[in-house]
Amino acid sequence: MVKVVILGQGYVASIFASGLEKIKAGKMEPYGVPLADELPIKIREIEIVGSYDVDASKVGKDLYDVVKRYDPEAPESLKGITVRNGIHLRSLRNLPIKATGLDDGMTIEAAVEHLVNEWKELKPDVFVNVCTTEAFIPFESREELEKAIAEDRKDRLTATQVYVYAAAQYAKETGGAAFVNAIPTLIANDPVYAELARESNLAIFGDDGATGATPLTADVLSHFAQRNRYVLDIAQFNIGGNNDFLALTDKERNKSKEFTKSSIVKELLGYDAPHYIKPTGFLEPLGDKKFIAMHMEYVSFNGAHDEIIISGRINDSPALAGLLVDLVRLGRMAVEKRDFGPVYEVNAFYMKNPGPKEKQNIPRIIAHEKMRMWAGLEPKWL
Amino acid sequence: MVKVVILGQGYVASIFASGLEKIKAGKMEPYGVPLADELPIKIREIEIVGSYDVDASKVGKDLYDVVKRYDPEAPESLKGITVRNGIHLRSLRNLPIKATGLDDGMTIEAAVEHLVNEWKELKPDVFVNVCTTEAFIPFESREELEKAIAEDRKDRLTATQVYVYAAAQYAKETGGAAFVNAIPTLIANDPVYAELARESNLAIFGDDGATGATPLTADVLSHFAQRNRYVLDIAQFNIGGNNDFLALTDKERNKSKEFTKSSIVKELLGYDAPHYIKPTGFLEPLGDKKFIAMHMEYVSFNGAHDEIIISGRINDSPALAGLLVDLVRLGRMAVEKRDFGPVYEVNAFYMKNPGPKEKQNIPRIIAHEKMRMWAGLEPKWL
Amino acid sequence: MVKVVILGQGYVASIFASGLEKIKAGKMEPYGVPLADELPIKIREIEIVGSYDVDASKVGKDLYDVVKRYDPEAPESLKGITVRNGIHLRSLRNLPIKATGLDDGMTIEAAVEHLVNEWKELKPDVFVNVCTTEAFIPFESREELEKAIAEDRKDRLTATQVYVYAAAQYAKETGGAAFVNAIPTLIANDPVYAELARESNLAIFGDDGATGATPLTADVLSHFAQRNRYVLDIAQFNIGGNNDFLALTDKERNKSKEFTKSSIVKELLGYDAPHYIKPTGFLEPLGDKKFIAMHMEYVSFNGAHDEIIISGRINDSPALAGLLVDLVRLGRMAVEKRDFGPVYEVNAFYMKNPGPKEKQNIPRIIAHEKMRMWAGLEPKWL
Amino acid sequence: MVKVVILGQGYVASIFASGLEKIKAGKMEPYGVPLADELPIKIREIEIVGSYDVDASKVGKDLYDVVKRYDPEAPESLKGITVRNGIHLRSLRNLPIKATGLDDGMTIEAAVEHLVNEWKELKPDVFVNVCTTEAFIPFESREELEKAIAEDRKDRLTATQVYVYAAAQYAKETGGAAFVNAIPTLIANDPVYAELARESNLAIFGDDGATGATPLTADVLSHFAQRNRYVLDIAQFNIGGNNDFLALTDKERNKSKEFTKSSIVKELLGYDAPHYIKPTGFLEPLGDKKFIAMHMEYVSFNGAHDEIIISGRINDSPALAGLLVDLVRLGRMAVEKRDFGPVYEVNAFYMKNPGPKEKQNIPRIIAHEKMRMWAGLEPKWL
Repeated sequence: MVKVVILGQGYVASIFASGLEKIKAGKMEPYGVPLADELPIKIREIEIVGSYDVDASKVGKDLYDVVKRYDPEAPESLKGITVRNGIHLRSLRNLPIKATGLDDGMTIEAAVEHLVNEWKELKPDVFVNVCTTEAFIPFESREELEKAIAEDRKDRLTATQVYVYAAAQYAKETGGAAFVNAIPTLIANDPVYAELARESNLAIFGDDGATGATPLTADVLSHFAQRNRYVLDIAQFNIGGNNDFLALTDKERNKSKEFTKSSIVKELLGYDAPHYIKPTGFLEPLGDKKFIAMHMEYVSFNGAHDEIIISGRINDSPALAGLLVDLVRLGRMAVEKRDFGPVYEVNAFYMKNPGPKEKQNIPRIIAHEKMRMWAGLEPKWL
Repeated sequence: MVKVVILGQGYVASIFASGLEKIKAGKMEPYGVPLADELPIKIREIEIVGSYDVDASKVGKDLYDVVKRYDPEAPESLKGITVRNGIHLRSLRNLPIKATGLDDGMTIEAAVEHLVNEWKELKPDVFVNVCTTEAFIPFESREELEKAIAEDRKDRLTATQVYVYAAAQYAKETGGAAFVNAIPTLIANDPVYAELARESNLAIFGDDGATGATPLTADVLSHFAQRNRYVLDIAQFNIGGNNDFLALTDKERNKSKEFTKSSIVKELLGYDAPHYIKPTGFLEPLGDKKFIAMHMEYVSFNGAHDEIIISGRINDSPALAGLLVDLVRLGRMAVEKRDFGPVYEVNAFYMKNPGPKEKQNIPRIIAHEKMRMWAGLEPKWL
Repeated sequence: MVKVVILGQGYVASIFASGLEKIKAGKMEPYGVPLADELPIKIREIEIVGSYDVDASKVGKDLYDVVKRYDPEAPESLKGITVRNGIHLRSLRNLPIKATGLDDGMTIEAAVEHLVNEWKELKPDVFVNVCTTEAFIPFESREELEKAIAEDRKDRLTATQVYVYAAAQYAKETGGAAFVNAIPTLIANDPVYAELARESNLAIFGDDGATGATPLTADVLSHFAQRNRYVLDIAQFNIGGNNDFLALTDKERNKSKEFTKSSIVKELLGYDAPHYIKPTGFLEPLGDKKFIAMHMEYVSFNGAHDEIIISGRINDSPALAGLLVDLVRLGRMAVEKRDFGPVYEVNAFYMKNPGPKEKQNIPRIIAHEKMRMWAGLEPKWL
Repeated sequence: MVKVVILGQGYVASIFASGLEKIKAGKMEPYGVPLADELPIKIREIEIVGSYDVDASKVGKDLYDVVKRYDPEAPESLKGITVRNGIHLRSLRNLPIKATGLDDGMTIEAAVEHLVNEWKELKPDVFVNVCTTEAFIPFESREELEKAIAEDRKDRLTATQVYVYAAAQYAKETGGAAFVNAIPTLIANDPVYAELARESNLAIFGDDGATGATPLTADVLSHFAQRNRYVLDIAQFNIGGNNDFLALTDKERNKSKEFTKSSIVKELLGYDAPHYIKPTGFLEPLGDKKFIAMHMEYVSFNGAHDEIIISGRINDSPALAGLLVDLVRLGRMAVEKRDFGPVYEVNAFYMKNPGPKEKQNIPRIIAHEKMRMWAGLEPKWL
């Protein structure tokens, strides 16, 4: 059994909940779940035990009713869980949403205590953080982090930073847990949080779930690198109509993507080919199915110039939700293995910015094989 | 030193010769050569010692003059080698080219003897077969092959089949050689030839050099497979304006592509997703820079349907020519290692249809790492 | 009121019937119908009075049940019309369909008489021919056509050729009718049929409904022509999974596309730029939503080379079905105007191969304006 | 004879000069010049008589040497014209270029007088403004404009605004001239300048030369509109590596694109389909050959959803330069016809934002025909 608490009951979390229940009921194939039935822990053993949000229209509602807003075919087995109030700390600021947070009525320290107490009752094995992309500043030192919490610095901390802090406390007191950070806020890549996690028996998967165009770009760049093609330039656009694209129209939030190692190009090619890789715009009718366009130009043998263009329509939320079905199970396995702190073997395949900080991007096709081995599975092609 | 004999002095062989000399002269970077400077045998050690063709306008001409037809910037260091007459056996049939072959004036057996004698003087380490795509029938048994040669069955044998036969005889007599079969005729995948090669100290790299859209498709399919996305359909078009596309408008030749394991889809995905993967047409002004278009549709988590479209303009001949710069050096290494017959570790990365027959396609990104290890190099990411 | 008889109750005819009824019931917007509400004859005035097919599984069934196979949301207002047996003459040959035709049990002449009698009862204003693409040979002379019918040459005539012959007889006897030939068989472009139609009070719209990539190609080529860009090459692929693509895998049928003026390139550019424009393949899971890919390369000012790639997923049947909603009303208008024979003003916009034979393709954007004027509407931009 | 003065000797002006001379010398076809040899005024009659810039590295240099920086094959016939110092007014601000302007050492009024005096000697018929895209504010009234000049408001005026003012004074004194405004600064669309031009015998072609993706988008949207397809969304990206893309990374300049009627979507479709149409980024290695990507989604008949993706590599400067070869000749014709102020018939085809302000965008394919008629030519397809 894997007990899961969701932090941020938006599009991704709702598709995760809906698809999970359909698979458990045998009504849907586990497509988009990389390890499907291969893991010793089966999909039917995953149980959502709690869900948190700060959207006033969701808090207090039944999970089923919230999920239905995103997937009209949500299964009724989702009924019976009430969405609880979580940490806000301005995470929905500038979005057209009425928000309410625990932190509105109490200090951060009190909110942390409140959460840890709730979790001791819910007994989650794994936390899944799928909050809206935040504007954030990483911490320089453990001291600075602890001081910010002690001094109730609501302007300094983000929801994610507080959630991980609380999860670490919960893990320390209960013997172990895992935290899946699927958004760009640096956690697995922040040495302060990595150390805190290691000390507290908290496994960390992060940062920023590897969906969309970037993992494909990674494999295509590896493909070029292995043929010693000299990449001249890379342009990659994304445009979508879901809340995450809306949130990224906010300049401050967009900056949080800059903390992400943009070094994927350099790490895979061995040199920093000029590139423009950005989510570009919000176009409401595209909905959750974003449009991506990539252009790459390279020099081949005898000075020949080649060009590749990749376009696509890709459903954003299901891509990440499918990965979460693995990650919660791998999280439970990390706890069992007592592999705490950032787990690179998992992150290198599942995360855009795989922590810990000192580790690099590798081709996803190879990362997949290494991850299998970490999980005790045979590699497929090695 | 690696001494090379070229069989088929067309576009690919000419770009190979031209680019090779430019790199040796320090005038061009070895882009498009996967192992570039990493191998113990350096690019500057490669020497073209002979070249064969059956185009009447090429035979007897200086290599420099022939290469210049394809690359106006061919270096003068190519001067001094005369293009010799090779085996025709109708390989240019139906093409608008006046052809002449050794086999026009003598039996196949005599032609083989003629070639072996020439080669004993030229002393090549490696043969590179880049003839025009042939219409061919594989051999059922060693006996059948030998009978066809003994009985001078000019309608039964193709140029490639005779060249390999001659190369095997040369290798047996001289202690070892390598044969790079860069065209679709089944050699590495023909058990009769595989056995002949093993017995004769002939290393075989083949079949059909892995260039163009197919290796990219392989890696993209692996990318989908590793995320358990269910591929609904794959369409892949190629259109080009060089002689190879012209040759493929001939139905009989086109069939030779059918002998190629079209099982790449099944081998990488684990199921035979409906696909249409074909070179489609000849359009003269595209020249050597073909246009490729691919469409793939798959099911992701929670039943979501995604689509990817890949388009590109890719120079056909340089892509293959760059691989040859590695293959001739690896050929020499195979002889040194006495690794005769089809060498799967090399073929899995460099060949569309990697022999021997019983072996499968694997993702190219992984094949690359295994090939490095075969060549005594550190893997890059494993 | 416009009374319509459908010839060939396949995908297009079924989407036409379904969409038409939904629009009439106010349940759907008339998207895809170029003239929508602008014509004096309104969409609600269109009535399907008869339907013919030769698929044994359709003949004798209620139209509603047949349409439902193609559109699960077919409206019940389609109930009450029985699909009648039509002309076969091998039109479904080579397709995996059990077929039965009037011509199986009687001579062609008898079948014509049978049809004309049925039509005199149904009193259609317009015939819509959406049979499967046929392999056919045009007629050299009126005499040859009449002799073929008199001599019951079932191997010489196609279903379409007989349907038009019967429709002409019906029109002659009843004072006028219109025939919409939405498939490639030459009718509007066959001078024999054009003359027959003029004499018989039959307006002809044809040939081959202008849907898919070709009309867009036409406008894009016009765009280049107007800027005097010199087009170097054009490649256009189509691949789909409906019965029409399946039918085109048959070589003989495919030839019927060759009768179509492939002169669109020359007529719009003023010179015959090298091109490869073909439906390419059948890939079942694509269904009715075909994948198209186009590549065009041209020279701009100062010798610059530009490239345009167009890709798309396009629903095949609705595109044509939407045009039919206009064409049946325009057919009725042609009869009222007594504009018999091929009507170029209509055909130039709605047809891939606009008849009569001596007329040329013009940019669709301009053809649209001229067609509006023919229909008594204000041009939009002229 | 058409005498031309260039304002802004950058990429476009240099390709214009180079290509023009090559055509005049019979060394190049007039591809990319819409009216090529059709106009009564021939290309060989165009003569560049003066050139102005503010880049310190260009002023005082021979035109040939400047043009050669952009086109290594610039013809020597360009020798003999010295690039003169023009108006700066911060137009190169924020760009990595050392700039110097007439306005650095004198008042705007004095600079205007200086220019008019030079022009009275050079006797140009047409001015071509191809300065770098400016950040600007249009004028509310003639009074405000004249006050700004009288009070030497260097912060209020842009180079273009002063150049047109000077050209109007020159035209008034000499009997007539034409001004081609190929950049986004509102001139033809600014009623203050339109009135000034009409009073001063100055024909105005503007604003913003219609090159790149937008005119193609216009024709594709017209194509959809004519079929009553309901467009759901439009995304259009551009990325390039020339100075114009670099200049657009500056936020203030980018705003000047907002003054451009973004109403093309509404004007062609009849409703404001959600759209994201923007130049997106600067990527140096792309150079002058930008990458464009468009995605459009629409509803067809019976509720079917279709998608079109257009990608391209397009040379930016030649596209505009080719139009200029027509525009200078049409400018001379406007003067001969005494058609002063903004000439809509010309602008509707050649300009992104066709002035005067009260006029709308129409499909380019139709605009072309109307423009031909204005120029005394037969329409091609009307």
